Amino acid sequence: MLVGGKQYRAIWRDTSTGRVQVIDQRILPHRFEILDVTTVDDFVSTIRDMVVRGAPLIGVTAAYGMAVAINEDPSDAGMAEASTKLKGARPTAVNLAWAVDRVAKAMKGLLPLDRGAASMALADRMADEDVETNAQIGRNGVAMIDKIARGKPAGEPVRILTHCNAGWLATVDRGTATAPIYEAHERGIKIEVWVDETRPRNQGASLTCWELQHNGIPHRLIVDNAGGHLMQHGMVDLVIVGSDRTTAAGDVCNKIGTYLKALAAKDNNIPFYAAMPTSTIDQNITDGLTEIPIEERAAMEVTHMPGRMKSGEMVTVMICPNNTLASNPAFDVTPRRLLTGIITENGIWQP
Amino acid sequence: MLVGGKQYRAIWRDTSTGRVQVIDQRILPHRFEILDVTTVDDFVSTIRDMVVRGAPLIGVTAAYGMAVAINEDPSDAGMAEASTKLKGARPTAVNLAWAVDRVAKAMKGLLPLDRGAASMALADRMADEDVETNAQIGRNGVAMIDKIARGKPAGEPVRILTHCNAGWLATVDRGTATAPIYEAHERGIKIEVWVDETRPRNQGASLTCWELQHNGIPHRLIVDNAGGHLMQHGMVDLVIVGSDRTTAAGDVCNKIGTYLKALAAKDNNIPFYAAMPTSTIDQNITDGLTEIPIEERAAMEVTHMPGRMKSGEMVTVMICPNNTLASNPAFDVTPRRLLTGIITENGIWQP
Repeated sequence: MLVGGKQYRAIWRDTSTGRVQVIDQRILPHRFEILDVTTVDDFVSTIRDMVVRGAPLIGVTAAYGMAVAINEDPSDAGMAEASTKLKGARPTAVNLAWAVDRVAKAMKGLLPLDRGAASMALADRMADEDVETNAQIGRNGVAMIDKIARGKPAGEPVRILTHCNAGWLATVDRGTATAPIYEAHERGIKIEVWVDETRPRNQGASLTCWELQHNGIPHRLIVDNAGGHLMQHGMVDLVIVGSDRTTAAGDVCNKIGTYLKALAAKDNNIPFYAAMPTSTIDQNITDGLTEIPIEERAAMEVTHMPGRMKSGEMVTVMICPNNTLASNPAFDVTPRRLLTGIITENGIWQP
Repeated sequence: MLVGGKQYRAIWRDTSTGRVQVIDQRILPHRFEILDVTTVDDFVSTIRDMVVRGAPLIGVTAAYGMAVAINEDPSDAGMAEASTKLKGARPTAVNLAWAVDRVAKAMKGLLPLDRGAASMALADRMADEDVETNAQIGRNGVAMIDKIARGKPAGEPVRILTHCNAGWLATVDRGTATAPIYEAHERGIKIEVWVDETRPRNQGASLTCWELQHNGIPHRLIVDNAGGHLMQHGMVDLVIVGSDRTTAAGDVCNKIGTYLKALAAKDNNIPFYAAMPTSTIDQNITDGLTEIPIEERAAMEVTHMPGRMKSGEMVTVMICPNNTLASNPAFDVTPRRLLTGIITENGIWQP
């Protein structure tokens, strides 16, 4: 998608050096910087420290991490070590394990000698596949937006609420929840996006607002508390969120707070969709509430808030009394009964 | 309640000067400062700029504002002018109009000459009544906490979730939602409070955490997104919130996001109570969703966040891209069907 009028992906290989590069998402929207990722430990910290985040992007980043590791040490033992390291970087995203295993499996039949080039080519292919998958999610999801638009008075936008960032920054390009939004915009359907700020890490305020702004999509930022009120007053036509892990039965694990929005959508009879590649669906589990372990992140994400001062300087401020204890579960599970449907590259699935 | 071991109310008259004083709640929890409020315009800005906030405290502050105005100009015309000014300071809190009208009405039968002393004595009485009302809310509400405690293994705390600050800082003393909590604590019932940070103004993080800390109540800060997840996992026994305005039928208008927690409590079969003095109940309206106008506050409350740097300096940081539009509805309405009960000084009401 566009940044300052120029096309970018969230991860790519530099055409001259061949090195993997990513956008440093920790400092958005305040600064736009590109980082080289060169060693397997680099890849682990890039994922762990959330330089990149979002299930599909974590997957592709891990695939490149495997390729870089294999280019250093193509032995089975080397691959196994890299695989363990990378899988441990973030606990929730099923795409991480999926991507690592896919690269490892593809290499098994090859001589170590051939693995370096093959693994890098596979990671490149996985990046391209992600883009095509998301474009297809967009084409599948846009139908709902178009249908709502047709039922509205001319000129009135379809108002879509989204939570967190399941945008192009969470993938290689296009995004998952945003794919139908970008698709609608490109087709000339009038839309407006309500962006949940998504505490504690504020990926809505810092990432979704930023990418929608750079791509010319009308949007408004709201606190996470506001969505229910907007739904009660007919100001939301549709909710689309992403997913970090979905069970075979259709329970969706996504950023903390998603469940609350799904309850409000249900209570107000508003369609609620999760958009994701099928790689996010974990066929080994069915019940999200009991089977998905929820990552508990640092209390400091709750007690402190990073931002930009008038001077332009980025600082982190404390927003509660000293010595306040905080809990910080990073995800919650939205049971399938609250979902209108799941938008994948293969179509719309009603769990 | 206690601040640094010393008893305070949120509003009082200085014993030597007779002047009205309040705690400046805008700079809590980072600094504890006391302000004199001396003219009617001072009272208007004290309410409008949220130096004090919380429906009951706004009411008592407005009563003192009327008394101060009447001491300057006890004529009917002067009272009418002060009444209009004060009522315009905040649009949602029904206690504001209730308190202003109560003072004005009581003065009607008196000669202007007698109104100065009488209005100040009435404001003092209203402050004392608020404290007694809240103490009674505490005695009425503690029964539920005690009942839950008795059903638990010995030593396990009753876990109570609250939203925003309906604490002693929202009243003259004791609080509304916190009154049963303080009462339980004083009776030796083991409790633990989940404090919603309550974006955008973060009254949970900045005020509720602060007052619970100073009064020795175990608590944990969470983002507003987390409550649903905690309820799904059996980590919340009871929800108690306050109310800024309640309809005759029992719909509760409270800080934005309350509705989402009520939905989650219902979905997980967790008791959900609103605690309030009966003065918060507006007998002129029944349907909260259509009849209560919702205050839309400044976008900057959403796009910016105040806090304290490591150096101790208080700053406000921007947390989204420049030029981001934001919406900021300050309250939402929780329909009575989602409430287990309403705790008042007269008992528990099941709408």
